[in-house]
Amino acid sequence: MSAAAASSAQDERIAARYGSIEAGGTKFVCAIGSGPDAIEARERIATVRPEGTLQEVLDFFERHDPVEAVGIASFGPLELRTGHPQYGHITSTPKPGWTGADLVGPIAAALEVPIALETDVNGAGLGEWRWGAGRGLDNLVYLTIGTGLGGGAIVGGRPVNGLVHPEMGHISVERLEGDDFPGVCPYHGDCFEGMACGPSLEKRWGRKGQELGDLLDEAIDVEAHYVAAGIRNLVYALAPQRVIVGGGVGQMPGLAEAVESKLLDMMNGYAVQPEHSDQFVVRPALGDDAGIAGGFVLAEQAAHGR
Amino acid sequence: MSAAAASSAQDERIAARYGSIEAGGTKFVCAIGSGPDAIEARERIATVRPEGTLQEVLDFFERHDPVEAVGIASFGPLELRTGHPQYGHITSTPKPGWTGADLVGPIAAALEVPIALETDVNGAGLGEWRWGAGRGLDNLVYLTIGTGLGGGAIVGGRPVNGLVHPEMGHISVERLEGDDFPGVCPYHGDCFEGMACGPSLEKRWGRKGQELGDLLDEAIDVEAHYVAAGIRNLVYALAPQRVIVGGGVGQMPGLAEAVESKLLDMMNGYAVQPEHSDQFVVRPALGDDAGIAGGFVLAEQAAHGR
Repeated sequence: MSAAAASSAQDERIAARYGSIEAGGTKFVCAIGSGPDAIEARERIATVRPEGTLQEVLDFFERHDPVEAVGIASFGPLELRTGHPQYGHITSTPKPGWTGADLVGPIAAALEVPIALETDVNGAGLGEWRWGAGRGLDNLVYLTIGTGLGGGAIVGGRPVNGLVHPEMGHISVERLEGDDFPGVCPYHGDCFEGMACGPSLEKRWGRKGQELGDLLDEAIDVEAHYVAAGIRNLVYALAPQRVIVGGGVGQMPGLAEAVESKLLDMMNGYAVQPEHSDQFVVRPALGDDAGIAGGFVLAEQAAHGR
Repeated sequence: MSAAAASSAQDERIAARYGSIEAGGTKFVCAIGSGPDAIEARERIATVRPEGTLQEVLDFFERHDPVEAVGIASFGPLELRTGHPQYGHITSTPKPGWTGADLVGPIAAALEVPIALETDVNGAGLGEWRWGAGRGLDNLVYLTIGTGLGGGAIVGGRPVNGLVHPEMGHISVERLEGDDFPGVCPYHGDCFEGMACGPSLEKRWGRKGQELGDLLDEAIDVEAHYVAAGIRNLVYALAPQRVIVGGGVGQMPGLAEAVESKLLDMMNGYAVQPEHSDQFVVRPALGDDAGIAGGFVLAEQAAHGR
């Protein structure tokens, strides 16, 4: 590329206005800008039925100047294979009305710009990779632990997808010795999500997370075991350079540090690197903005045909 | 690229002579050619001490016309980070004399061509991706189950590495109900390798694999459980389009079919795709040549600076 072309490409990037949508089960967040520190408009829309919610999303974009592309980080499961007849749809979800909902189609038709879609966790992982706790890394895992438990891997600046996308919450985890809690996953009982998500904490201790009181230390200890057990499997499967843990449960005080220590115990010296005990399990640097930031990365990639 | 340049690049590729080395704990296989069906020389060298074995490897290459680049698929663990002072070395292994052995250095110094190094399983996965059971796929897992158990993921034609490389044999696996076999992994006891590798079969049944006789059906059933349990975790972590199972234990009669069926039971309808029951768990198409084929892919990538 000539110097003039490079400079013009850079001007174009600075001037770019992208749309970002974080599509969640309780709210959709829409934003216009080019990154988490360059947001010119943002709106929160309650997740009701697909038609109503998507109409509000379109109204938001129509009230503002046109965007070059839109990136969507959404709850799922999603059909992400671009050649598939159901591409861009939510495939099946307990959320009433959303099974089979087309996310990409209506937005592409109304805005007539490129649209990129990813899972919420892949989106948040991309945001953290670009501007947050994963900056400069070639291989990271992003987990969110809250009402559910999900995760995505970003390798070489791209989410790892294949036959659809990873479902990291449904890997199995080693039980804590003597623990007979059955887990809460309706499909697998005691999988990672079944043993470590918010509702599993509530069911195990008979109280909501905020009301644990004198049980808090023990609850964090048990939670740290299961989070470490899940991460151990992801470490041996993917060799990430860092694991970023977001979501409400992920923010319990001292959890990340306890997880890092239990992870080393579980690996028991096998394939352990110095990096595994140096800020290996961390919180998101972008906090609640990771998903919106990821939407901007997706939009930029879509605008440049990548 | 102009048509003439494209044609010249293609001629160059057809004419290319690469070296491939499959470095194993009992033997090194060296080959010269450009793919599994285009091998002009091949030699098997016993794995003794590093200096002796590597000297025989160099002698092999010096007896033949020069190669453009060499790809090595090796046992490990390996240091694969190119900026690391120990790049190209085996880091630590129970194999006497091989801890800290430099694989890349002596070969690069003697042959003065680009050298690419990968784990044995990543190499075999690359070979199957290019010429075998993974052709045309964007995301596959290659497992080998024999004396040990290892695995690699090939995503977008590249092995997934990060903080070093995956160690898929050391993920945890769900126990078969009522099974109290402790497993044979010296680090984790009942991890994937500990419950499913050849030595675990031998210890569990008190006989070598070839001598199972009337225990064979039950042994295959138990083995299929643990292989499926490991694959379930890899499916939810990575979403591969196919899982290729090589190695001696992996070739037990009916194992792949039994694994596919148990995998579906374990996933219990969650994120299951039609592809999961259609040749999802398969044997390597290249058989014992997968590693050597992968060495050619690595050499070609190294020759073209990728």
